[in-house]
Formats: sequence, structure tokens, C-alpha cells
Amino acid sequence: MSAASPSTGGATRWATQRAERIHAELNAGVDVWTLFNPVVFPTAINLGQGFMNWQPPSYILDAITTEFANRVDLHHYSHPKGRPRLRQAISDFYSPEFHLPSGASEGDRIRPGRQRAAGSRKLDVETEVQVTSGANGGIYSVMGAFINDGDGVVCIEPFFDQYNAEILFHGGVPLYVPLLPPTDAKDAHIDSNEWTLDMAHLESVLAKPSTKALILNTPHNPVGKVFSSEELGKIAELCVKHDILVVADEVYDCLTFDNHKHVRLASFEGMWDRTITVGSAGKSFACTGWRVGWLVGPDHLIAPARAVHTRITFAVNSSAQEGAAIGLEAANKHDFFNTQINQYAERRKVLQTALDDIGLPYTVPHGGYFVMADVSKLKIPGDWVEKNDVPKAILAKHDDYLKAWFIAKTCDVVVIPATAFYADKGAGKVGKNYVRFSFCKDDQIQQAAPRLRNLIPFLQS
Amino acid sequence: MSAASPSTGGATRWATQRAERIHAELNAGVDVWTLFNPVVFPTAINLGQGFMNWQPPSYILDAITTEFANRVDLHHYSHPKGRPRLRQAISDFYSPEFHLPSGASEGDRIRPGRQRAAGSRKLDVETEVQVTSGANGGIYSVMGAFINDGDGVVCIEPFFDQYNAEILFHGGVPLYVPLLPPTDAKDAHIDSNEWTLDMAHLESVLAKPSTKALILNTPHNPVGKVFSSEELGKIAELCVKHDILVVADEVYDCLTFDNHKHVRLASFEGMWDRTITVGSAGKSFACTGWRVGWLVGPDHLIAPARAVHTRITFAVNSSAQEGAAIGLEAANKHDFFNTQINQYAERRKVLQTALDDIGLPYTVPHGGYFVMADVSKLKIPGDWVEKNDVPKAILAKHDDYLKAWFIAKTCDVVVIPATAFYADKGAGKVGKNYVRFSFCKDDQIQQAAPRLRNLIPFLQS
Repeated sequence: MSAASPSTGGATRWATQRAERIHAELNAGVDVWTLFNPVVFPTAINLGQGFMNWQPPSYILDAITTEFANRVDLHHYSHPKGRPRLRQAISDFYSPEFHLPSGASEGDRIRPGRQRAAGSRKLDVETEVQVTSGANGGIYSVMGAFINDGDGVVCIEPFFDQYNAEILFHGGVPLYVPLLPPTDAKDAHIDSNEWTLDMAHLESVLAKPSTKALILNTPHNPVGKVFSSEELGKIAELCVKHDILVVADEVYDCLTFDNHKHVRLASFEGMWDRTITVGSAGKSFACTGWRVGWLVGPDHLIAPARAVHTRITFAVNSSAQEGAAIGLEAANKHDFFNTQINQYAERRKVLQTALDDIGLPYTVPHGGYFVMADVSKLKIPGDWVEKNDVPKAILAKHDDYLKAWFIAKTCDVVVIPATAFYADKGAGKVGKNYVRFSFCKDDQIQQAAPRLRNLIPFLQS
Repeated sequence: MSAASPSTGGATRWATQRAERIHAELNAGVDVWTLFNPVVFPTAINLGQGFMNWQPPSYILDAITTEFANRVDLHHYSHPKGRPRLRQAISDFYSPEFHLPSGASEGDRIRPGRQRAAGSRKLDVETEVQVTSGANGGIYSVMGAFINDGDGVVCIEPFFDQYNAEILFHGGVPLYVPLLPPTDAKDAHIDSNEWTLDMAHLESVLAKPSTKALILNTPHNPVGKVFSSEELGKIAELCVKHDILVVADEVYDCLTFDNHKHVRLASFEGMWDRTITVGSAGKSFACTGWRVGWLVGPDHLIAPARAVHTRITFAVNSSAQEGAAIGLEAANKHDFFNTQINQYAERRKVLQTALDDIGLPYTVPHGGYFVMADVSKLKIPGDWVEKNDVPKAILAKHDDYLKAWFIAKTCDVVVIPATAFYADKGAGKVGKNYVRFSFCKDDQIQQAAPRLRNLIPFLQS
């Protein structure tokens, strides 16, 4: 064998060559999804991830299965903007909710804080709608299109755990404004809408010269809060005042309970021109694995986001887009969203009953499919950690990780520690008291109930 | 109506707020796909884009249709690494072609330029394979994972038109090394493998201190060249010598003609540790709209790429992944790739006959499904441009755009001007002489033949 080459560029060499943008990501260690993984807890009922265990509605699945089997075009590239049928369906279904301005742009004569009068025109399918590779791919594209090094992007904490990396990868600086539970909760149930933003705090962050954008998630994951018109009006006023670009992550728009109606932030005066609204077929139609989402907004925001999305993946899976179009087109005919809401409300009730049964306090969500349970009174016996060989990665985190681990080991039910959705400061103050249960597993919530009773001895207050 | 707000942030405002990374992209004007769009030429036979007009093979389509209709999991999130079944199928199918080193890393005792002995181990499905949102999403993720501001990335020109933006979006600097046709071609047919790289030129660019990576595409789009073992050995030697990270875009690996066998760049000594190989289900199985691709390489390169890909879109469409797995698992049983090669060879023959018939010279491709036709002797009558209201965007480009427009107008056949795949300098020297025909439209190539005869009066040499 001849001598080694002058430079072989082996593993060590390339490990040092990673792009700066991903350093924080790669140094963050094992993530929550890997720690609380089905392989680690093979017999567990997984109420962690928002992962449904049923098929999309038959009115979609039957139609799209037939088209998938018989059509040629559903197997080939779609237009980078998205399939015309889906863009049309999005426009038809959602246009009224945006109270669109009469022109393409809203202009200057606005009264910040007020919702616009209902508009008469529809979303322009060529310029105001962009289909994306999941809502996720949409948000990533918006960050790519607008965030420069050092731009501040405000996240409401707790936040969907993808935001952070999506901001950091584009040189942005995440800025956290907490959504806080009431400090004087009198009984076991907090109403999710009692979690509130301190608007003065929000304004102080939005007012920073380096702050460029806000990501607002309503209905909110993981809290389940559906922001009220009053709150959204106030947020809109601040965004106009401080000239903020807004990503309105409204992927749970079709899933609100208790007569809390979802209101679109982009429908407030002064907001259309500055807001990109994000939607999701996966969450709307129980098809998270299809990876179809969309962006809605003015041409001047959608076009740059499209430019990025097109270069990332060119186009989105064709048959999944067609399926999402069928879903929207026929949703009203099948009274689909109301039916789905009632089904989720039933699942929510089963989970609430199970938590009430063991005396674990929680926040009642008005939207989405998650429940934040307060585990602050869960006491883990002193010698348990030692006896149970808890991974160091768990012990290195806040208390909620250990408590989630304890629940998984004691009940064989997986939940997600809430600090996965918090930055460090907020994690230590609030997040450490919570774990997140999902209620998007039919029947399994019922099966989890008796298992959760194993916690009773450790919940003596 | 009250007064205007202090700052409304309308369209003009946000148009100035786009991220720097996309300026070049947004200033590039209308792209080639938009100019030569089906809406512009509604009755045309489109031999432009690589867009097939048949379904994926029935052994895949029948199986996946049934699974799609009956399974729950195919409608929900897959693992961010990709579905285990697909990763296993990739490992089973492709491992031998990589001549894998015995360990995870190759180490230093290498003889640059030689192909490694065939390895005995298989690709590790947990660390060495990553499923991506199309091959495109894979390449984008690699750029995100490794390219910092100012890093040079070498592209062989002509190049797949997505590379450029993918490099620029991550602050990289594209560096072009031309693949040049022979200057002394004696007859109408150039052999695609007569297009060659000047290795001294390649080395001079790889040797620049700022050069970090090379994207090598074999089989090559649009030329159809299948790089030989000798050429790949030489390229490997240079990459080792100058410590270059390599993206081996081998998406046409299953489609080579005339006994030109595809050889993997990663199979050369010193290359495994520095190479990410890119594959595509869409191109392999006639399902470009499924958006499934993959990356293969050592853990130290795959893990950072996965970190980016996961944040872009979390996971890839589940049923499409399962379909790709079925495709690979049963390809040999159905002798699928050989059959497909014969079908494409037949289509290639039909296109060659049509071009021979009108006397248009071209390059005979040994891989992929494109033919570069030399339009330098096509003469457009002096008054034609004026009489035909040619868009300014066409006239602003190199001659090949006008010639492609002329072909579309005169023959109702759409082809793609080659300078879409060139940077400016190369476009003016070589690219302007070519247009690209695809031969991935069954029967339509036959239908295009008589239409192309309309060019004969303009091809007098």
C-alpha cells in the first residue's frame, strides 16, 4: 500500500467544516423527540407527538386513491406555485376570513387595531397563495426570504420547536416574549385563554431597532389558547406601529372548541401588507405525512418566499396537493370541520377525565390538540433516579424532562416535557412545571387512563 | 376615516426588506420555465422540461395504491431520517456500488485516483442514508450544512439550474469549470463523452484557498455524458489533493445507454469521507411529482445535512417514500431498470431520427433523457423578430433563447435554451449554440417529428 495522501479530509476534518449557521443546532445534543422515542419505550402509549392514528376522511381518501391509481399527472412535477386546483380551493375556502383589501395592497389609510370590513374580492391564486412542503417548509422559506444576519424575530414562548432553528439558520436572533399562565389559579383547571401576553413587554421587544419579524401562533401550540379579537387587535396595532413583518402560524385554524372562533391576524387594518399566514393540510385533514402546507399573503411577501421554496424543493408532492384540494372543496358539503371538532372535543374530554381522575391540574385548550398538564406537584421519590438508570441527557435538562421520563417509566405513557418549547429563561420559570399531552390518538387516550393512575401515589399535595 | 398610521409598511416597504441572499435570484428576471410555459404555447408539444407522460411502473403503483388506501401510517409523519423501509431498500440496493470502506470512515491510507476494492459491508441505515424532499431538497440541505459566506463551490458548466441559487442562498460563491464539446467535430453527431473537462483548469479552481466544495453531476444533465472511471479517478485525485467536499449528483444513475456504466465518485479511494451522493426516486421510477430523493455518505456529512433537512420540512411524504422502497426492493425481480433503459433508448432513437431528418446536429447522450442540439446553423429571417412580437425578455438573453422561441413559434414544439444552464461567460461562448430536447415524453416525440420539419428552410448550411 502506498503512502497516505497529502490530505485525506477524513471524518475529523469535515466535522470542523460545518456551516456556522448550524453550530447551535448540532451542539444542542439529543433532542426531545429522540429521547422520548418509540424505540426507547416500545410498549408505551405515545401521547407526545401530534401524531394521529386514523386515516384522512373517506371523502378525500377514496377520491384521491382512485385518482392516484389512474392519472398520470399526479405522479409528476407540479407547478412551483402549487397545483392550480389546490390554490383555487384555498382561495375559495379561506378568502372571506382574510377580509381582503379591495386592491392588492392595503395602502396607508388604515386604523390600526381594527378588523377590516369583510372584503369582496378573493385571494389571487397566482400571486397571493403559495403551496409549501408542509407548513414547516413555508415558514422556513419565509425566514430564508426575509431574515438577514442579526435580524430579531420575536417568538411567543412557549413556541413550536422548529421556529428556533429556522431563525438561527438564517442568521436571525430569536427574541422570546412569554405567554404566561395566571399566577392566582384557584382550581385545577386553567382556561387556556387565561394565559396572556404582557403587551408592554411585547412592545418593548418589537420596538428594538433590530427586531424585524414576529411569529404569532394562534390557535397556540402547546397552550391551546385561541387569541381573542381584542388581543389580536392590540398585537396588530403594535406591529403596525413598529413596522413588523408577521408570520401568522395558523395551522390549527380549523380546530377550535367551546365557540372560540379563530380570527386571522391578517384581517386587521394595516396587517395584510405585512403578514404571511401559514396553513396546513396535515392538521386540517389528518394527513400529517402528506407534507402539504400553504402561505397566504400579498404578492410582495409571497413572491420572495416562493423564490426560496422553489429552490429548496422545486414543487410539492402532486397527489397530496390534489388530496388537500379535494379536502377543501368538499369540506362544507360533508360538514367535515364541525364533525372533526366534535370528535376532538370528545377526545379532549376523555383526556380531561383521565387527568381529573388522578388529580393532575391542567390547562383546558380551546384550540389544537394538546393539553399542558401542570406537574409541579408530582414528587419523584428520592432514590428513584438512581434505581432507574435515568439517562444523563434527561438529568441535564429541567425538571419536566425527568418528570416526563418518570411518567413514561411508571405509566408506560409518553408525554413531552414542556421546556422543549421554551428558551432557557422561560424554561426555568414556567416551562419546567408542565408536560404536554396530545389528544390526537383515538382510543389510546382511553387506554392511557388506567395507566396514568400509577401516578396517584406521587401526586399527594 | 382616521389619519394614516405612523408607519404602514406597505408593499414598497417590504420589497426593500428581502434577505440579501435572494437579491440575485429576484433580480434575475423571468426564468426560462416561465418564458417557455404551457400557457404561452398551449398547443405545443413540450420537449423542454424533464417531465414524463406515463405512470410509475405497475409493480409499484398497484402495491402502493392498495397500501395508501388501507394503511393509517402512510398518512402520517415519517421519521426525519426517512422511513426505515426505504432506508433499508437504499442500503440493500446501492451498497455494492459504493465499494464501502470496512469502517465508518476510510482513514488515511489511501491511494488517490484508484477505485476502492468492492466492500463487504452495507450502508448503515441509521447514519449513512438520509431521505430528502426530492434530490433537490437534499442538495439544498447539504449547502445549508456546509457552506459559509464566501465559500467557493465549483459547478461543472453547463449545470442543473437549481445549483446556482442553492449556493448563493447560503452565501457561497459559484465557480464554473466548463465541460466543453470537441472543437473539431467532423460530423453531425458528437458523442456526449467527447465533451471534456480541462483537468488543469479544474485543478486551478479547486486549488483556490476559498474553494470548499465541488458539485459533480454524472450522468450529466444536460449533456448526457457519463463520466468514465479514468475521469472520475482524476477528479477524485484532485479532490483529495485539495481537500474538497463533494456533492455527487447522480440522480440519473439508473439511466445509462450504450454500455456506459455509471461509476460512483464516492467509490474512489479518499472519496467516501468527503462525498455526499445524491439519488432520486422521481428519475428512477418515473414519479418526479412524488418528491423523494436521498443522500448517501458518511455520518459526519449526513448528520449535518439531516439537521438542516429536518428543520426545513421535518419529514418527507410518507406514502411516496414507501412507494420508492417498493420500487427498489422489487426492481431486480421485475428487471425494471434494464427494461426502462431499453424504453428510453427507443425514445432517444426516435428523437435522433427526427433531428437527423431535418439535419440538426446534436450530441448523443449516454445517460439521462436530454439531447443537446446544436442550433448554430439555424438562421432566423431578418424581419421575423419584428413581425412576431418577440418578448423583450427573450431578446435580452443569448441567441439560444430567440432560437428556442423561433422553434416554439415555427414548430409548436417547446425546447429549452441551453444558456439556462450556463453562467454568463460560458453562455456566450458555448451555451448560445445549443437548445435542450428531452426524450421523456412517450409518443409525443414521434408527433413532434413532422412539426420539426418546419425548420428545414432555416437550416441551410
